[in-house]
Amino acid sequence: MTELTHSIADLRDRLASRRSGMVGLVPTMGALHAGHARLIEAARSECDTVVASIFVNPLQFDRKDDLQQYPRTLESDLKLCSDKSVDLVFAPSEQEMYPVAPCCVIDVTKLGDHLCGRFRPGHFRGVATVVLKLLNIVQSDRAYFGEKDAQQLAVIRRLVSDLNVPVTIIGVPTVRESDGLAVSSRNRRLTPEERGLAILLFGILSSVRDQIASGSTDSAAITRAAIEGLPAGVKLEYLEIVDGEMQPVATVDGPVRVAGALWVGQTRLIDNLLCEPPR
Amino acid sequence: MTELTHSIADLRDRLASRRSGMVGLVPTMGALHAGHARLIEAARSECDTVVASIFVNPLQFDRKDDLQQYPRTLESDLKLCSDKSVDLVFAPSEQEMYPVAPCCVIDVTKLGDHLCGRFRPGHFRGVATVVLKLLNIVQSDRAYFGEKDAQQLAVIRRLVSDLNVPVTIIGVPTVRESDGLAVSSRNRRLTPEERGLAILLFGILSSVRDQIASGSTDSAAITRAAIEGLPAGVKLEYLEIVDGEMQPVATVDGPVRVAGALWVGQTRLIDNLLCEPPR
Repeated sequence: MTELTHSIADLRDRLASRRSGMVGLVPTMGALHAGHARLIEAARSECDTVVASIFVNPLQFDRKDDLQQYPRTLESDLKLCSDKSVDLVFAPSEQEMYPVAPCCVIDVTKLGDHLCGRFRPGHFRGVATVVLKLLNIVQSDRAYFGEKDAQQLAVIRRLVSDLNVPVTIIGVPTVRESDGLAVSSRNRRLTPEERGLAILLFGILSSVRDQIASGSTDSAAITRAAIEGLPAGVKLEYLEIVDGEMQPVATVDGPVRVAGALWVGQTRLIDNLLCEPPR
Repeated sequence: MTELTHSIADLRDRLASRRSGMVGLVPTMGALHAGHARLIEAARSECDTVVASIFVNPLQFDRKDDLQQYPRTLESDLKLCSDKSVDLVFAPSEQEMYPVAPCCVIDVTKLGDHLCGRFRPGHFRGVATVVLKLLNIVQSDRAYFGEKDAQQLAVIRRLVSDLNVPVTIIGVPTVRESDGLAVSSRNRRLTPEERGLAILLFGILSSVRDQIASGSTDSAAITRAAIEGLPAGVKLEYLEIVDGEMQPVATVDGPVRVAGALWVGQTRLIDNLLCEPPR
């Protein structure tokens, strides 16, 4: 039986009797899909109590229209949580999470400067702040995040180590459609025609991965080749080869990550792949 | 028997068996004096386990010379902790607290903009960051801070509520010498002559308090009168009448706080008093 609460105090009360076992948190913005299901499965397999939070965090949206258009599907989200045997769903209101405008927020430097951080000012500041709040509210032993949001995962790992937050962060592999498109809440906004174009992002990332696997090392040349002949209807926001601290790598000489953001119509999609040079 | 540890992991190990009772944290920068003793006494009277941390936090010093000159007196600090029945002293190295330069730190807006924040850029950012780290490391139920650092206390209270940190913050009244001078680690630096001048700060604050108690309401006029005829050898850095959120108050119409910073030679002293208008 999945319990639902909207209140921090009530959540803490309900968790009080469960603290002797391991507690896992799956933080989400709702609009749950197969990627979230994978996070919940990972938590379910490792923890005695699984908490999923559902909160569309206004602090991390740089564009008001994106916040307004973000899908909100609480009823079907609860169904998925119930199917996946989540113990507790925490779905707070904005008032519950931000009763007043916060004076103390997380400033993210370096890790947040490139990739999405360049194009979404304040995004990781908002992400890090709400994740720290959720970690403090739930006080879970573990928390689960998708590798699709690789930069977010890197920021959260660093948040936890920089601030000594007593939690273990678990990264969970990206779930993909059969053609390779990374599953995302934003995919719901795509028209059938746009869905056809969306796969181009995975194609570009795969090209980078394959070039690196076959020995190419010049990042600029690799990314240039990968985006050649991109059709109209899509707009590449960024494509970068980065290290573990999300800093651009000019010459590949070890495992790296390629990350990209592609606009398909009015929808912004992100994805990334680990790339390994030949041994 | 007071235990001493320099390691985060070891501290957590030692605390593991004590978590069933209430744990209290007294965060300090060492150079312990009667003010810290009062904090420890408050913790001792309320908690089963009392942890005192001793760490001179480089992140909160805006001037390198101030950091270098900050008194370090571990041996006598341990003696005071032992006399006051502290259970555990946590005295980490800089390497233990900041193994790498942090990417995620606390950005303090509004509360940190005035008073000390104006004159010590980055100070409250450093304070909030290290306090959050210590709270996360110790995971205490309560943490004790002196009211002498009123702005710091306000920042920490807000840090805890903004970020849902599961701890109760306890403010402890300022300890004063017989003539009114607030006890401070920095008082040790004063020559006998400077010690004579240092009391001027308490005099200025008392004048503001008395004027407000007798019905004066114009903050600018009140502070102007309070600092009239200040002798050479001291330099007033700021004197402000502020509300609970440390924002300047132009007209006093309820309880306020007067806060000041005075340079006596090379030493910067701060103090504050609660002021109540007549009923």
